[in-house]
Amino acid sequence: MVFHSLFLLQLLLLFSLTTATAKRLHTIPPRLSPIEPRVWLDHPDQNLGESVREDFETFFYNQTLDHFNYRHESYDTFPQKYLINSKYWGGSDTDCSAPIFVYLGAEAPINGSLDTIGFLVDTAVHFKSLLAYVEHRYYGESIPFGDEAFKNASTLGYFNSAQAIADYAEIIIDIKKTFQAENAPVIVIGGSYGGMLASWLRLKYPHIALGALASSAPVLYFDDITPQDGFYSIVSKGFREASETCYQTIRESWDVIDEVASKPDGLSELSERFNTCATLASAAVLKTHLIEMYISAAQYNAPPTYPVNKVCGGIDGGGFGDDVLAKIFGGLVAYKGNGPCYVNAPAYQSALPGGWSWQRCSEMVMPFGFGKDSMFQPKPFDIEAYIERCKQTYGVPPRVDWVTSYYGGHNISLVLQRFGSNIIYSNGLRDPYSIGGVLRSISDTIVAVNAVNGSHCLDLRFANQYDPHWLVDQRNSEINIIQEWIDEYYHDARCSTKSHI
Amino acid sequence: MVFHSLFLLQLLLLFSLTTATAKRLHTIPPRLSPIEPRVWLDHPDQNLGESVREDFETFFYNQTLDHFNYRHESYDTFPQKYLINSKYWGGSDTDCSAPIFVYLGAEAPINGSLDTIGFLVDTAVHFKSLLAYVEHRYYGESIPFGDEAFKNASTLGYFNSAQAIADYAEIIIDIKKTFQAENAPVIVIGGSYGGMLASWLRLKYPHIALGALASSAPVLYFDDITPQDGFYSIVSKGFREASETCYQTIRESWDVIDEVASKPDGLSELSERFNTCATLASAAVLKTHLIEMYISAAQYNAPPTYPVNKVCGGIDGGGFGDDVLAKIFGGLVAYKGNGPCYVNAPAYQSALPGGWSWQRCSEMVMPFGFGKDSMFQPKPFDIEAYIERCKQTYGVPPRVDWVTSYYGGHNISLVLQRFGSNIIYSNGLRDPYSIGGVLRSISDTIVAVNAVNGSHCLDLRFANQYDPHWLVDQRNSEINIIQEWIDEYYHDARCSTKSHI
Repeated sequence: MVFHSLFLLQLLLLFSLTTATAKRLHTIPPRLSPIEPRVWLDHPDQNLGESVREDFETFFYNQTLDHFNYRHESYDTFPQKYLINSKYWGGSDTDCSAPIFVYLGAEAPINGSLDTIGFLVDTAVHFKSLLAYVEHRYYGESIPFGDEAFKNASTLGYFNSAQAIADYAEIIIDIKKTFQAENAPVIVIGGSYGGMLASWLRLKYPHIALGALASSAPVLYFDDITPQDGFYSIVSKGFREASETCYQTIRESWDVIDEVASKPDGLSELSERFNTCATLASAAVLKTHLIEMYISAAQYNAPPTYPVNKVCGGIDGGGFGDDVLAKIFGGLVAYKGNGPCYVNAPAYQSALPGGWSWQRCSEMVMPFGFGKDSMFQPKPFDIEAYIERCKQTYGVPPRVDWVTSYYGGHNISLVLQRFGSNIIYSNGLRDPYSIGGVLRSISDTIVAVNAVNGSHCLDLRFANQYDPHWLVDQRNSEINIIQEWIDEYYHDARCSTKSHI
Repeated sequence: MVFHSLFLLQLLLLFSLTTATAKRLHTIPPRLSPIEPRVWLDHPDQNLGESVREDFETFFYNQTLDHFNYRHESYDTFPQKYLINSKYWGGSDTDCSAPIFVYLGAEAPINGSLDTIGFLVDTAVHFKSLLAYVEHRYYGESIPFGDEAFKNASTLGYFNSAQAIADYAEIIIDIKKTFQAENAPVIVIGGSYGGMLASWLRLKYPHIALGALASSAPVLYFDDITPQDGFYSIVSKGFREASETCYQTIRESWDVIDEVASKPDGLSELSERFNTCATLASAAVLKTHLIEMYISAAQYNAPPTYPVNKVCGGIDGGGFGDDVLAKIFGGLVAYKGNGPCYVNAPAYQSALPGGWSWQRCSEMVMPFGFGKDSMFQPKPFDIEAYIERCKQTYGVPPRVDWVTSYYGGHNISLVLQRFGSNIIYSNGLRDPYSIGGVLRSISDTIVAVNAVNGSHCLDLRFANQYDPHWLVDQRNSEINIIQEWIDEYYHDARCSTKSHI
C-alpha cells in the first residue's frame, strides 16, 4: 500500500545520485508504517481500526524458503507472520464453510495501522468471514536469513512475487486445515502491489482463492503496455483540475530552482528560501522532495482533506510572497504543516523501504518517465541506466520482461475475456497508478469498479462519516459482486441450505 | 510419453531393493527412445514419421537455470534443444498470424521417434501451423551442469515441472519473436506427463497458450484424489476383458512363483523355467519383470496388434505346458518374441530413465498401490517407505503435497467449471493412467474426449491405415475443438479476414 515509495528509487535514478548513495537503498531498515505518515496525519480518523486490533491474534507459519527448487537450502524455512480474526466467522461444516477473507501483505510490515484492511473488518459481519492478514516475505518480522537477509543477491534472490504468492497459497491451505474449513470459499484482497498479488494469486491458484479484490493494482504498468509518462501525466492532471494557476506555478518552478542553484551560493539561497533543515547538497534533493510531495498528494487525494487542494491552496495563496519559489514554499508549508524546518528532515529519509527497492531492481521494473505533457521537467525513462544502476547496487540485473512473461498483461482483454473469473480491479481515477490499472471490465466476472474521484486504495480503508456517496457506492458494488461469487460457489458446491451462510 | 517407466521406481520400492541398487537409479543414463521399444517394435509402421524428420530444424535456446530466484547462480543458462518445422506454416501478419503448435517434451529426449508428435504433423496442412517440439530440461541434450547434472539435489534441485513450464513459456515467446508472430494463437500439446504440462501451462500462462491438448494426462493421480489402487485395477480389468482364464492364471501365478522361490534351489528352478539370461537374484526380479510386461501391454494395448490379447494368447495357449508357470512363460514369449533368453536382458535395465526417478522422488508423488480387486498380490502404497527411500537416494524428501498445492486437482470440476478454458483432456479408457485423468467435461471449453478402446497417448501418433474408426473420430473431435478455439480467437482479435487463415 505504500506504493508511493517505489518512486524514490526512480527519482534517485533520474537525478543521478552517486553509487554510494544508491547502495544505501537496501541497508536502510524497512519503514514502520505502511502508510506515508504525513499524509495520513491529515486524516481525522487516522487511528480508526486500532480498537479492533485486539480481535486479531498473531501466528507464525513455518514457511518454505524456496518453493521452486529442491536443493537442500530450498527446504530451509522462516517464520512468516499472520494475523487471524475469528470473531465474526460463521464456522465450518463437513461440506461447507463460511468464507475466509485473506488480506495479502505487500511491501510493508503488517504491524502498521489496521486501517489498511478496514474493508475486511467492516464487511466481516455481513460475510461472517474469518479474517487473515498475512505478511509478505522479507518485510516486518517475516525475514529469512535474519540479519543477512538484505546483504546481497545470494540472500535476496528468494525475495520475489512468485515465491510470495506461493507462500500465501501454502498459508491459506494451512489456515483451512486448522479451521477444518477445506471447502471454505476464499477471497484474497490486496492494495497496490498487494492488489497485483491478489489478482495474480486468483489467476495462478484458482483452486485456492475463489476470487480476488485487487485495489489500485497497476498490473499493466510493465513493458510498454502503459505509456511510460502516464503516471506523471495523471499527477499533473489532478493539480491542473484543482487549479490552473497552481499547475502553471509548479510547471515553472523547476527551471527557477535550477537557475538559482546554478548561481554562486545558489544552494545556500535555495536552502534559505525553503527553510531546509540542512544546506541542500544539490538542487536535485529539493526537486526530489517536491516531486515526492506532489505524488503523495495526488495519490492520496482523499476526502475530507483533499491534499492536492491543500497544496494548491498554499501555492495560490501567496502567503510567503508572490514569486515562484515563495509560492512553492507556501505549498510545502500547507502540506507539511508548521515545523522548525523542511525538505531534508530525517523522517523522510527513513521512509525509504529496504525491501521494495530490491523488488524494483529485480522484477518490478515499472517504467516511469516524465513526459512533455506534464507539470514536471521532461525526462523519459532510461531503461539502460536503470539496469546499470540496479546491477551496481545488487550485483544482478533486473529481469525486465519477467512480470509479463509470468503473469501476462499484454492484450489482457483478449487473453482473459474467455479465461478466468472472479476478479475485481478497483480503481480511483485520481490515483496516478490508475493509468496502469485494468479500467474496463473484461468479462462478466473480471470487472473494473472505478471511482472517478477516488484515490489510491481508498476503498480498502475503514468506512467513516466523511465518506462521500461515490465511495460508499464503490464499496457496495464490491460487496455485492463478492457476495455473488460466494452464492454461486455455495450453489455449485450444493451447500446453499446451510445455516451459517 | 514413456510414462510407463515411472513404475520402475515404484516397483523397486515395493520389492525392497537394497539402497545400493536404489542409488543406481539416477546414475543410469537417460534412455534413448521416448517409446518403450519392445512394444513399439510390434507396430508395423514403427518408422512412420521418420521421413518427415528432415522437415525439422534443430535449435538451442539459451535457457534460464532458475526462473524463480535472483541469486547469481539463478542467472546461469543452459542450452535447451527444440525442433522447428515451418514447412506448413501460414505465416505472420501485423495483426494476425497462422497458429503455432508446440509439443512439450516430457521425460525423454526428443531425438526419438517422431511418431510421438504425429498428430502435429498430420494436422499441419489443415491448420497451416508452425510446429515446435521442445525438449524438457534435464533430458536429452538439454542438461544444465553437464556431467554434474544428476550428481545430487544441489544440481537436481532446478529440475521440476514449474521450472520446465516456465522454460516452455520463454521459448514460445522467443519463437513468436523470431517468426514475428507475436499475435499467433499457440496450442500446446503433450502426452502423459507432457499432457499434464500442457494443461498446466494453459492454466498458468493463458497469455502464452491459447489452448492445450493434454493426452492421457493423469493430473488427478495425486494425493488421495484417485484411489491408489486405481491404476492396477485398470490393468487387471483389461486382462480380464481379454480373457477370464488368462486373468485367473496371472492372479494365481504370484503365489506359485513365491512358493517355488522359497524352495532350496528354487531360484535356479525359476530361472530355468523362464529361461532367464542370468540366474534370478530373487523372486522379486521376475515378478517386477512380469508386472512391467503386463503394464506395458495394458498401457499400449493399441491396434492392430493389441498386446494384451497377444500376452493372453500365449498364456491361454499352453504351448509350453499346462502348469501356471509354463503358461506365464508362454505369455512372456508371445509378448517378447523368440529370443535367446528372457527377464533380465540388459535392454530392459537400460530402459530406466535417470531423470524421471528424480522427478518421482521430488514432486511427482503418485501413489500407486496394488488393491485387493486385481490380478496382482495386494500391497497398498506405503508413503512413509516411499519418502524414506527417496531421502536415502537423493538426500532430500519429496514434497508430497506440492503438485496439488501449485496446480490443484481436488474438486477440479468445482474449481474449473467457472475458471479457465480451452483444454482438451483426451483419454483412452483402456490405458491404466486414464483412472487419474479428467474423464468428464468440466465446462463448454474444458472438455474430455475419450476413446473407450483407446490406449496411452494413441491419439497423438501418426494416423495410419490400421486406425479403427473410433480413433479417427477421437482425433477429428480434437481437431474440430482446436479449430473452434482458433476461429474464436481470430474473431476476438478481429482478424478473421486475413488470407492465410
